[in-house]
Amino acid sequence: MIGDPLPTEHLEGQLLPKRFALPIFASDPLSSVAYAPQELLMILMVGGLAFLSFAPWVALAVIVLLVTVVASYRQLIRAYPSGGGDYEVAHRNLGEKAGLVVASALLVDYVMTVVVSVASGVDNIISAIPELNPFRVEIAILFVIILAAINLRGVSESSKAFAVPTYLFIASVFVMVVVGLTRTFLGDPPVAESATFGVEAESLTQAGIILLLLRSFASGCSALTGVEAISNGVPAFRLPKVRNAQMTLVLMGGIAIVLFAGLTVLALISQVHYAENPCHLIGWTECATEPQRSLIAQVAAATFGDATVFFYVIQAATALVLLLAANTAFNGFPLLGSVLARDGYAPKSLSTRGDRLIYSNGVVILALAASLILLIFQANLTVLIQLYIIGVFVSFTLGQTGMVRHWIRALRAPGRPAQPRAKQVDDVKPLSRGAIWRALVINAIGAAMTAVVLIVVTITKFTHGAWIVFVLMPILFFLMMGVNRYYRDVEKEIEVDPTTTFGATGDHAVVLVGRMQKPTLKALDYAIAARHDSIEAVHVSLDDEETKRLKKDWVKQNIHVKLRILNSPYRDLSHPLIQYIKARREEHGSEVVTVYMPQYIVGHWWENLLHNHKARRVRQKLLLVHGVTVALVPWLLDSSDLLYGRRSRPLPGQDRRGEPVRPVPRRPITESAQKPKR
Amino acid sequence: MIGDPLPTEHLEGQLLPKRFALPIFASDPLSSVAYAPQELLMILMVGGLAFLSFAPWVALAVIVLLVTVVASYRQLIRAYPSGGGDYEVAHRNLGEKAGLVVASALLVDYVMTVVVSVASGVDNIISAIPELNPFRVEIAILFVIILAAINLRGVSESSKAFAVPTYLFIASVFVMVVVGLTRTFLGDPPVAESATFGVEAESLTQAGIILLLLRSFASGCSALTGVEAISNGVPAFRLPKVRNAQMTLVLMGGIAIVLFAGLTVLALISQVHYAENPCHLIGWTECATEPQRSLIAQVAAATFGDATVFFYVIQAATALVLLLAANTAFNGFPLLGSVLARDGYAPKSLSTRGDRLIYSNGVVILALAASLILLIFQANLTVLIQLYIIGVFVSFTLGQTGMVRHWIRALRAPGRPAQPRAKQVDDVKPLSRGAIWRALVINAIGAAMTAVVLIVVTITKFTHGAWIVFVLMPILFFLMMGVNRYYRDVEKEIEVDPTTTFGATGDHAVVLVGRMQKPTLKALDYAIAARHDSIEAVHVSLDDEETKRLKKDWVKQNIHVKLRILNSPYRDLSHPLIQYIKARREEHGSEVVTVYMPQYIVGHWWENLLHNHKARRVRQKLLLVHGVTVALVPWLLDSSDLLYGRRSRPLPGQDRRGEPVRPVPRRPITESAQKPKR
Repeated sequence: MIGDPLPTEHLEGQLLPKRFALPIFASDPLSSVAYAPQELLMILMVGGLAFLSFAPWVALAVIVLLVTVVASYRQLIRAYPSGGGDYEVAHRNLGEKAGLVVASALLVDYVMTVVVSVASGVDNIISAIPELNPFRVEIAILFVIILAAINLRGVSESSKAFAVPTYLFIASVFVMVVVGLTRTFLGDPPVAESATFGVEAESLTQAGIILLLLRSFASGCSALTGVEAISNGVPAFRLPKVRNAQMTLVLMGGIAIVLFAGLTVLALISQVHYAENPCHLIGWTECATEPQRSLIAQVAAATFGDATVFFYVIQAATALVLLLAANTAFNGFPLLGSVLARDGYAPKSLSTRGDRLIYSNGVVILALAASLILLIFQANLTVLIQLYIIGVFVSFTLGQTGMVRHWIRALRAPGRPAQPRAKQVDDVKPLSRGAIWRALVINAIGAAMTAVVLIVVTITKFTHGAWIVFVLMPILFFLMMGVNRYYRDVEKEIEVDPTTTFGATGDHAVVLVGRMQKPTLKALDYAIAARHDSIEAVHVSLDDEETKRLKKDWVKQNIHVKLRILNSPYRDLSHPLIQYIKARREEHGSEVVTVYMPQYIVGHWWENLLHNHKARRVRQKLLLVHGVTVALVPWLLDSSDLLYGRRSRPLPGQDRRGEPVRPVPRRPITESAQKPKR
Repeated sequence: MIGDPLPTEHLEGQLLPKRFALPIFASDPLSSVAYAPQELLMILMVGGLAFLSFAPWVALAVIVLLVTVVASYRQLIRAYPSGGGDYEVAHRNLGEKAGLVVASALLVDYVMTVVVSVASGVDNIISAIPELNPFRVEIAILFVIILAAINLRGVSESSKAFAVPTYLFIASVFVMVVVGLTRTFLGDPPVAESATFGVEAESLTQAGIILLLLRSFASGCSALTGVEAISNGVPAFRLPKVRNAQMTLVLMGGIAIVLFAGLTVLALISQVHYAENPCHLIGWTECATEPQRSLIAQVAAATFGDATVFFYVIQAATALVLLLAANTAFNGFPLLGSVLARDGYAPKSLSTRGDRLIYSNGVVILALAASLILLIFQANLTVLIQLYIIGVFVSFTLGQTGMVRHWIRALRAPGRPAQPRAKQVDDVKPLSRGAIWRALVINAIGAAMTAVVLIVVTITKFTHGAWIVFVLMPILFFLMMGVNRYYRDVEKEIEVDPTTTFGATGDHAVVLVGRMQKPTLKALDYAIAARHDSIEAVHVSLDDEETKRLKKDWVKQNIHVKLRILNSPYRDLSHPLIQYIKARREEHGSEVVTVYMPQYIVGHWWENLLHNHKARRVRQKLLLVHGVTVALVPWLLDSSDLLYGRRSRPLPGQDRRGEPVRPVPRRPITESAQKPKR
């Protein structure tokens, strides 16, 4: 289903040339263009059509912010080329707690990237094929499942697929902008299908107007999401890594600005009227039944004509680039999870690579979280956008603030190299004091601006759903702190100390016998081979008939190990056994009792539902008894051949066929052969 | 949450006197009265109000069938008083496959009992409190969860609660019928709120009329569901068991007939017009927004007046008795599951009693299945009824057919006792030939009638949703067959045979060492205490720094066991280990290699998410290697005190404090101490 297991050496894939690195890391930030202008204009329209005249200024503010953030991340890439991104910067410069705040923001951000990108992608698919509208949520969740499956297969196979749709998206949107503007200059501006609709305007106070402009700006800032992706991917670039990454970042920023500005202008020219609540559109009667088409679809339909090939190309490219953006999060989230696990803030299982060298648990968790959110919010893009950018700007702000701290330290300690991790890459020369100062100013401006935006976003979005993020982030924060403290406590608990001494004496083996079957004989054989000081077989009698049969078989098989029968009046297996072992230890002192239990190894997951259930329960209870160790003697059922194609393995004792059936104890085993207590 | 664990001896509870047995076993069959008349009349109304004149005859047919089934089960109780019910009868008399058909029918039946009873209960609650209508599904699933929780706590605590609501239901419906009829005789008949509504009638052909009458009869047959409950509960009766159970059965049948007939008559008198699609009612404008009230609610409102105390008493009693009926399935389903598991047709884990002596897995499975069905069908009673009675009549028919076979055998072999299991109860005398003949005739009539009804129900309900049951039952059937064949194959595979011999030679211990921590030292200590022929500590080096530190600690702790370092270029733990063990076995022959691994024992479930993950993966892979046995050395973390209050357990080596820190090998352990290969 998800491909054969890969050997670990494949981990070292080829490094990326710029022409592949751009589409791979740019699908996330560029895809934001598909929804940012729409959300920006939509919020303005709440105040009425007249408010659209503010749109160019709001868009300009977004572009200025985008330039600042790109400039800031250019510095960050240079200083931290290891791919740790904002988490590493905040952790190193602002301490553990700031790092964890960034981590929780990023975790939320990755989930929301998947959710928003998929929701927007589905929205654009439905804009092209309105018949799919009733299945919006189902399609969205299906895409999440497909993305998860692709990523469980492995990165390398999916990464090359990035290039085509991203370039297609850039090219087609660019062509659309050029065509639209040309038509406008030729006096035939495109006219959107919603151009004739009026809109029910809310009457606003002066404060309300300012708030609305800020809300519009905050929504437009969703264009910035994903800019940080390149800073997390520096190690994947070809040499010179830092320079290549920086150039790609700037190129990406330039393209994003062109597409964002072009789409906004074209939407204003063609008079796309996109409303938060479609039934607030005056003149549209099917608002309750028909889906409102996305801004990009309306612009494409106005520019190229509805249902033309060009229209479908635009919609397909948009949907694909959005799904690829979601895929970026499927790379980033498990990686961040593994970094957090390595640092002891997340369960260690997140840093375990699966059979396909993927951090599979992270992929599964992300898919589940994204599906749940899509289900709860019914894949409604406008609502989801509200939850999105908080996390982004928290990590922007703390990352940039960390950079400021980093440069200040570099200035204060000129002896120390400014780039603690620069050794890892080959092409970074130490910065001059002037360059450090320049970088400090850039990052300070970036930190200040993103902090202001964070406040704006928080104020304007809080009541529109962003409060959920402010509940989730602290939960994640405290969970990670808790996990860290837990691991630390356990570490301390199991630390070697001079007061705890070891020195078990005595050695007794108990072979747990149910019925006379091959797995039992194998366990018995192994126990005898291990030559314990004393050995006995123990059978807990749940059924008199079976016990009688076992006793008969015991004699028939001529087994020299003593068989002890424990009575269990209440048909419970573990209790009499534990009582017996405890009583024995009281008599014989602190001996080690090794309990041999057969364990079935099966080839299908479902076979586990049919086996080992009782044995597991007994094992769990036995492990609680002082001085007990449980030896699992595997019995490989035929179906286990499916695992790693073991068909050729020898049967137990196969090479010794013809020998006597019964295991022969190679030294006399007596009950009294225990060593005296110390 | 679900109460303290109970010792097993509590299993033998007190036996039930008749006054408790009646309400306990009768809540299921009597609660059917709450929906059977409604469904019967509702189907008739599809043909128009005129068809209601057929209602008394259809109801009479249902009553005749009920009498027949009660008479048939009187015989079954006598012949099979062990509580095995239809499954046992069919299995013993008609063979394995008939038994499994009954079993799959009963499994579906139990799930549908929960679903239908809860849906009807919620329907009656909403009839009293219409404001709850938007939360119909949520309330239904909540009730399922509550029932599951109660049943995970244990039967004995819930069973006494049965008596009050069942008697309250019987009494209040009886009073309502008497009051309603008295008012009618006094010339003031109750008039239902829907009496003035007309109904859009379908125009029917003659065949259509007959089909409609049969459909109405089939729906009315839902009154028979649960009659078999007493036959499954005979062992719970006081002595004389069979007589008491038979008397209770007859009493229950009588009450059911009175209530069913009374309610039907009263609904006809008060002209309750209950439509399958409420918007087919002519004159009711709120059909799309308001819930249609249940028949029993409309009758109660007409008889006592709406929103009176009596009305609420009726609704509360109805809802309670329906929830208790659902509870009956929560007793029956896990019990049937355990019987099937004992016979090898279901996973053995279904026959494991939980801490509270309950077959917990069965309870959980039932709750999940019922919740899923309620969710899919949105707790819509009318749709769910269609799925219900198929299973009931399959088990009726096969059970009665089995009884016919049983009596024929009894006649043919007069020497053999007619009741093979009669020994288990004390009060059954052998039957005379005449009595056997009489019983044979009764069961034959029962089998014939239920078979006819089964055909009628199948024909009339198949397209209305019953096909789902005909898909599910074969799936369950083949699953159970498959499980049985699987267990049989495995049994054969692990059977002791003369060609497979055992006789491992050599004995080597490998202690898996990660870092120098107490659990590692304990594992080392146990391995040394077990005095293997040879012993070594193995460390897989994932990180050079850590390996260096371990080597230093090894010297510092003065451990005499040789530490072997395995290199792992790809940061994989299990692969180098397995390679090493395989290479070793190739060199030393078929020796047993015991791998010692520390296993953390924790007190909270969530701690398992943070521990043992890597160890479990390594263990699973090691168990696939030929000749390996894995010894789990438990390390009880402080939190494990929570399990069984182990606070007082001694620390490892606590009683030997002051001894040397390092474990002292009690005999020289050398690499070359292996036994020569045979």
